[in-house]
Amino acid sequence: LSPAQEAANAADPLPSWNEGNARNIIMDFVEAATTEGGPGFIPEEDRIATFDNDGTLWAEKPVYFQLLFAIDRVKTMAPDHPEWKTEEPYRAILENDMESLKDQGMKGIATLVMTTHAGMSPEEFQKIVQEWMSVAQHPETGKPFDQMVYQPMLELLNYLRANKFRTFIVSGGGLEFLRSWAEVTYSVPPYQVVGSSIKTEFVQENGRYMIKRLPEIEFIDDKEGKPVAINRFIGKVPTIAVGNSDGDLPMLLYSATKQPSLQLYVHHTDSIREWAYDRKSHVGQLDKGLDTAAVRQWTLIDMANDWNRVFPE
Amino acid sequence: LSPAQEAANAADPLPSWNEGNARNIIMDFVEAATTEGGPGFIPEEDRIATFDNDGTLWAEKPVYFQLLFAIDRVKTMAPDHPEWKTEEPYRAILENDMESLKDQGMKGIATLVMTTHAGMSPEEFQKIVQEWMSVAQHPETGKPFDQMVYQPMLELLNYLRANKFRTFIVSGGGLEFLRSWAEVTYSVPPYQVVGSSIKTEFVQENGRYMIKRLPEIEFIDDKEGKPVAINRFIGKVPTIAVGNSDGDLPMLLYSATKQPSLQLYVHHTDSIREWAYDRKSHVGQLDKGLDTAAVRQWTLIDMANDWNRVFPE
Ligand SMILES: [Ca+2]
Ligand SMILES: [Ca+2]
Repeated sequence: LSPAQEAANAADPLPSWNEGNARNIIMDFVEAATTEGGPGFIPEEDRIATFDNDGTLWAEKPVYFQLLFAIDRVKTMAPDHPEWKTEEPYRAILENDMESLKDQGMKGIATLVMTTHAGMSPEEFQKIVQEWMSVAQHPETGKPFDQMVYQPMLELLNYLRANKFRTFIVSGGGLEFLRSWAEVTYSVPPYQVVGSSIKTEFVQENGRYMIKRLPEIEFIDDKEGKPVAINRFIGKVPTIAVGNSDGDLPMLLYSATKQPSLQLYVHHTDSIREWAYDRKSHVGQLDKGLDTAAVRQWTLIDMANDWNRVFPE
Repeated sequence: LSPAQEAANAADPLPSWNEGNARNIIMDFVEAATTEGGPGFIPEEDRIATFDNDGTLWAEKPVYFQLLFAIDRVKTMAPDHPEWKTEEPYRAILENDMESLKDQGMKGIATLVMTTHAGMSPEEFQKIVQEWMSVAQHPETGKPFDQMVYQPMLELLNYLRANKFRTFIVSGGGLEFLRSWAEVTYSVPPYQVVGSSIKTEFVQENGRYMIKRLPEIEFIDDKEGKPVAINRFIGKVPTIAVGNSDGDLPMLLYSATKQPSLQLYVHHTDSIREWAYDRKSHVGQLDKGLDTAAVRQWTLIDMANDWNRVFPE
């Protein structure tokens, strides 16, 4: 059984959640949403739940895992590209010069993404990601990255689906990167994944028709891009929206325009089992979002106190 | 009961389809797709069916119905825009000068779409479309436009869904225009509608957060745009693809890259009950598609012979 299936079979739908405010608010909301005739009832067609991914469904420290994928990919590709030894940002990566890579900022990252994510079909790219996922290890925990998902969130996804919520991922991460493993890991099919994307074209190569991934950014699914993408891809205002950073704030504000609805922030408070960070973090900064949550009385999921288990065993 | 529900309840899943080649090929394909262990078996997660809309699920003569909506909308808005009396393309529309409108080509149409489709939220736009749909009549049949859908295709949608195919609309028509009525008419929810779109932004107006539709084309979901959009929105190669024009040819070719799969063309052969047109038609031209269908032995749905009923009664 996968951790997701295991969770679905349990009698308590949220066994990794401690008794407390977050768990109560979630369960009360879902019970009301499914109680026909009640004030909190939500018709099935409006039971749309959108989840951020990095820092919400899986960890994001020390850096976004997709960046680690791209770095590993450059190292794998390097033997065919001797020129990379002196060319940035490849030189920095090949020499593990992370400070220099950081100094190259978004331009360096963009070059890196284009080199490692474009030039092939989505199917070929997904296969590359899946192979990486099967061997790569988190630099601090040594775990496979698909074991760095949050067990309580797997349970929440299942619990919502059992109550006829349709679960979508709305991530700043790459669309096809996510699709490579989201179906197996989260039971979220590709047509329920919304993410950042590069351009593609439909071409015929060697007599074979295919979608080809191009080295050009199409859409960044972050900040105001999230509600825009939710409208475009889903076409409904989510009645549940879950995030962990300021990048999710527009998505939560958009969700809050519909009533009843539930907005949740995962608050990284657990320096022992995970990482503790919020207002000052480079990755997953939660600053304006914390202020807004306080004003609007949104629920914070306090990782240290609300979860009795963080990762699947 | 809606026509869609009525069809679902019938013992014969395709009562409006005459015995014959098209019906047999469809039913054989679906039976094979759902026969585990057989050579035609398709796992549930790959049962993705994509349907063009204009000319495939509903009629498209004398012109695309969305154009008639835009024309009606200009007439409704005209009292607030006295300047339109002398400004093209509005003048042509207000004077029913369709020849002149036609001469203004895509530029005139684009202006028309921007004026009538932008400047409001998706919810407001959908309400406008729904109100139009409830009163507007087809210029030749006098029927409401949502009764100009093809009964055999409603049955096919239901039949596929009953066999665990997920049905998507992939249309050159406008995304929100379609979403306004696709859920009621076709039982296709908004997140399974792919279409052409205009840009949007997430804004705060009068203290209220909203998605706002902007007067700028974002994406044309036609020709090579269809496989590109299928990859982006659905993320799976469709195992059934149904269209009626050359604009659908890339979608059908894309579908054919996956095996087993089924490609279908609706061939408008019925000048009595509907319209007869193909290679020379301005709307819904089917020329290169007919040649490709012959070479690849794709199934043509011969409207005159394969359907015993065209529209819901
Ligand atoms: Ca995040
Ligand atoms: Ca068409």
